[in-house]
Amino acid sequence: MDQITVFSPASVANVGCGYDTFGFAIEGIGDFITICKRSDDQLVIEQSKGAILPNNPKENVASIAVESYLKHINSNAGFSFTITKSFKPGSGLGSSASSAAGAVFGVNHLMGNPLSTRDLLPFVMEGEAFASKSYHADNVAPALMGGFNVVRSYEPLDIFQVPTPNDLRVLIIFPDVEVKTSEAKALLPKTLSIPDARNQWANVAGVISALYSSDYNLLKKSVSDVIAEPVRKKLIPGYEEVKRMMCEHGSVGFNISGSGPSMFSFFRNEQEMESVKPKVQALYQKLGHELMLHTSKINHHGSIIIS
Amino acid sequence: MDQITVFSPASVANVGCGYDTFGFAIEGIGDFITICKRSDDQLVIEQSKGAILPNNPKENVASIAVESYLKHINSNAGFSFTITKSFKPGSGLGSSASSAAGAVFGVNHLMGNPLSTRDLLPFVMEGEAFASKSYHADNVAPALMGGFNVVRSYEPLDIFQVPTPNDLRVLIIFPDVEVKTSEAKALLPKTLSIPDARNQWANVAGVISALYSSDYNLLKKSVSDVIAEPVRKKLIPGYEEVKRMMCEHGSVGFNISGSGPSMFSFFRNEQEMESVKPKVQALYQKLGHELMLHTSKINHHGSIIIS
Repeated sequence: MDQITVFSPASVANVGCGYDTFGFAIEGIGDFITICKRSDDQLVIEQSKGAILPNNPKENVASIAVESYLKHINSNAGFSFTITKSFKPGSGLGSSASSAAGAVFGVNHLMGNPLSTRDLLPFVMEGEAFASKSYHADNVAPALMGGFNVVRSYEPLDIFQVPTPNDLRVLIIFPDVEVKTSEAKALLPKTLSIPDARNQWANVAGVISALYSSDYNLLKKSVSDVIAEPVRKKLIPGYEEVKRMMCEHGSVGFNISGSGPSMFSFFRNEQEMESVKPKVQALYQKLGHELMLHTSKINHHGSIIIS
Repeated sequence: MDQITVFSPASVANVGCGYDTFGFAIEGIGDFITICKRSDDQLVIEQSKGAILPNNPKENVASIAVESYLKHINSNAGFSFTITKSFKPGSGLGSSASSAAGAVFGVNHLMGNPLSTRDLLPFVMEGEAFASKSYHADNVAPALMGGFNVVRSYEPLDIFQVPTPNDLRVLIIFPDVEVKTSEAKALLPKTLSIPDARNQWANVAGVISALYSSDYNLLKKSVSDVIAEPVRKKLIPGYEEVKRMMCEHGSVGFNISGSGPSMFSFFRNEQEMESVKPKVQALYQKLGHELMLHTSKINHHGSIIIS
């Protein structure tokens, strides 16, 4: 087999209290990456659709991640990539993680799967590190493996997954405003008081317990954040109004996705989730921003081969 | 009914990463409190056994907690208390929480249970607050209700429980050295860096997930602490040696209990737990400190009426 097309999903990191720790994959949006084996040893970004991505393989997260993978397995194989994005970079939905995960996952398959999917994580993180200027796994793990992931430790890398209730649904609200990850990072505090940190990890315990026990009341209370939300919400027009709407329409957990501007909102049924959509649309029409609304289950597959 | 005897268990707070948040009850040690209804409206500490406790009802955590309970239910009933402790105050095993929980639980029963056990928490916390000079629930909740408790929020008070694996065992190691809670508190940092705080809540997520999924490998890695252990371990002679012994004998989680000097160690079976006991005994004999070793399951009853 010399050609493959992979789908690698978008993902929601942080999830309120789990800053740099929690991340889950969503269904239906992400990167479609077609990878062709080449006769030479080059990595070539053939084409990008849906977004303007760097053509230079030294600057594209997909090829950077693949280069680090090929070096590890001692291969000088070459590949061409056509990347079709169904959502924009800078959305807060793990765009660079999707590209890096899908590319490495697909190349590993074309190479005959010398590594397990989980063992691809460090190479995918190399691509992500180039994009975000720091070493993160909270979008990378779900884009690669699916599910709800917890990055327990970075050194050594240790990630575990938590089951999620079958009926849990998520609404993604993506107003088309630019929030640079670096800018969103610069706003964050450098330290936390012990009481603030305590509240954050008490809520982390609440989210994990709620996911295991399907306790939506606990989930709703626990999806909150003292670090990023207070400063980053100012970068997202309409944030407080959206939060109030979600609360009024049965959301069981709402916050910023990654570093924004996307937001996520958990629901326990489709009807409540659908009922709030026209109101969010009307709000952003009034505010004069394009809006993408996307509804999804939690994605438990991660990167998959689609042809 | 005019007389009752209650048992209220000892408990382990913090549990490594869950500073001011996690607490579980243990079996077999705690306070036995005999409560007699009086014909007058006085609260009287009749007798204390096993430890010297304040006789003045304005200075005894049991009567302070009961006074706050009686005020809430608008009662001017009087009671006498005989408190028999099977472990010392200042052990790090929630001594004041045991006394306060047992006393309020017993008086509520003698009054015909006008409040549910869970609703007694705020009054028990009044007693605990007098002893520890701050408002804590991490020993109070397990002493009253049993189980593994998470204090999600203090304002409003919100506590939830997490199931624990049936085969989980705990060894309590209590070397007889004095660690004053106030002194142990003063050593703590006032702030945490974001990376340290992140590591702590990632481990909090690990402990909760491990308890739900009986993942002892995850439990062992996650029971760690960046706040209290680094400074408080210096107050506990032999701490590092005990930690190493536990690791070598199959412990699946070890740390300081509360503010010490007691330590707790999780095991997944009796044999490993028993095999380490003689080594700990030999160590403290060499160090010249009295030692109490106690083995237990997680206690799921909390305060109970025994006669």
